[in-house]
Amino acid sequence: MDFIGYTMFLCLVSIALCYDIDIDLDLDPDLLPRPLIVEFPDTRLKNITEELNMQCTSWRVAAEANNLGPWKTIPRECAEYMKEYMLGRSYKIDLETVSKEAEAYANSLELEEDGMDAWVFDIDETLLSNLPYYADHGFGLDFFDSAQFDRWILEGVAPVIKPSLKLYENVLRLGFKIILLTGRGENRRNVTITNLTNAGYVIGENDHEKSAIAFKSEKREEVIDEGFRILGNLGDQWSDLAGTSIASRSFKLSNPMYYIP
Amino acid sequence: MDFIGYTMFLCLVSIALCYDIDIDLDLDPDLLPRPLIVEFPDTRLKNITEELNMQCTSWRVAAEANNLGPWKTIPRECAEYMKEYMLGRSYKIDLETVSKEAEAYANSLELEEDGMDAWVFDIDETLLSNLPYYADHGFGLDFFDSAQFDRWILEGVAPVIKPSLKLYENVLRLGFKIILLTGRGENRRNVTITNLTNAGYVIGENDHEKSAIAFKSEKREEVIDEGFRILGNLGDQWSDLAGTSIASRSFKLSNPMYYIP
Repeated sequence: MDFIGYTMFLCLVSIALCYDIDIDLDLDPDLLPRPLIVEFPDTRLKNITEELNMQCTSWRVAAEANNLGPWKTIPRECAEYMKEYMLGRSYKIDLETVSKEAEAYANSLELEEDGMDAWVFDIDETLLSNLPYYADHGFGLDFFDSAQFDRWILEGVAPVIKPSLKLYENVLRLGFKIILLTGRGENRRNVTITNLTNAGYVIGENDHEKSAIAFKSEKREEVIDEGFRILGNLGDQWSDLAGTSIASRSFKLSNPMYYIP
Repeated sequence: MDFIGYTMFLCLVSIALCYDIDIDLDLDPDLLPRPLIVEFPDTRLKNITEELNMQCTSWRVAAEANNLGPWKTIPRECAEYMKEYMLGRSYKIDLETVSKEAEAYANSLELEEDGMDAWVFDIDETLLSNLPYYADHGFGLDFFDSAQFDRWILEGVAPVIKPSLKLYENVLRLGFKIILLTGRGENRRNVTITNLTNAGYVIGENDHEKSAIAFKSEKREEVIDEGFRILGNLGDQWSDLAGTSIASRSFKLSNPMYYIP
């Protein structure tokens, strides 16, 4: 049995023992580790791998549909799955699917001529990717470390999320007022704008950038109180999108790595 | 090339020609059907199948996360994928994942002693499954036919969704008032209650069953006006869950087959 197979097997045994999602694998008793290393047929390994993939996909979809309560880390047994998801084509496709929907929606709107039609963007995991940081932290397997994450933010090198840049350029061209709502602190404004600019985003001098450490709903309310109509909102967290003063349509980008209440 | 391979190939050619999700397959020109049947290596077929699976999963997840506008049918190229999803283990796992989350939440609550803590359930694709009907209608590939669907409803044989029954029994035992909000017409009340009872649901004589043909938000408001506190809500449509007068927590069951605005 090769290394991956063995890792997978250990991983699956650990499911039954240590994690609270219970997974119905129908493991035969003869699969239990009576000899320290158990050989089993490839088809069995394939079935177990498929089952684990389905379970981890199910968890990821539940997170996307806002079905999970606040969670601190991804399920331990989904570590390898999440790495493959984030680095592989699936995550890219998911970003593209959602941005294309948002773009079709934006294109379908007729804007008023008063310049008060607005589109809200979140920043982290929406306009900019912190994947290089999270790749060093188990893709959501490690507990969040705000001091370490802040050091990464200060480097100002978070790469662009390309489908979001395309959407951003499109809504800018259509004449939307762009409003950035971010959980980043006010004292990270300069490095953030430099990072966004280097990543390809054209940030106008008059563009709103509102810090949203408190609650995004309240920040949206302020924007609405200023007279803006929030027609669209792109974010990776439900707290970017849901609550009160919500946009006419909201678009949730995939993010299975962390949850912000 | 076997039948499935050939079907898959035809299906992929159709993507480029007829559907409005554009899928980036990087098809080589030599893959185009100059000879009527093209042989290509297994690995190529495997890659194309994987790509299609990722695209269709991405569409399904976008639907679950409420990222798609109103849609009438599933993407044509996802017909085979959706059949496999609905009949295979993935759909079952997804139902279980969400119901378990809901159950953990329900168990965590301390109910008041006035009997006014309520849990709302939708019926179709939530308590009862119309999968036998949709299996005859392409799993969402055909346009919805209300007359045909009504004939199916009148048979009263929609099977139970087991994880939902488990949740239902649990919230009943915990002392929640159960409220059924359904899009079914008032004149389908008797057949619906008989169907639910035969499927294993204990429907109390005083149980609320509210028709929700108009808007579920309004029906929830009525329930709240009667003094109930809606602590939980289980449904398969965003229109079951979102809007106004929402539950403290809502749980979205998977349904990639149809969309109700």
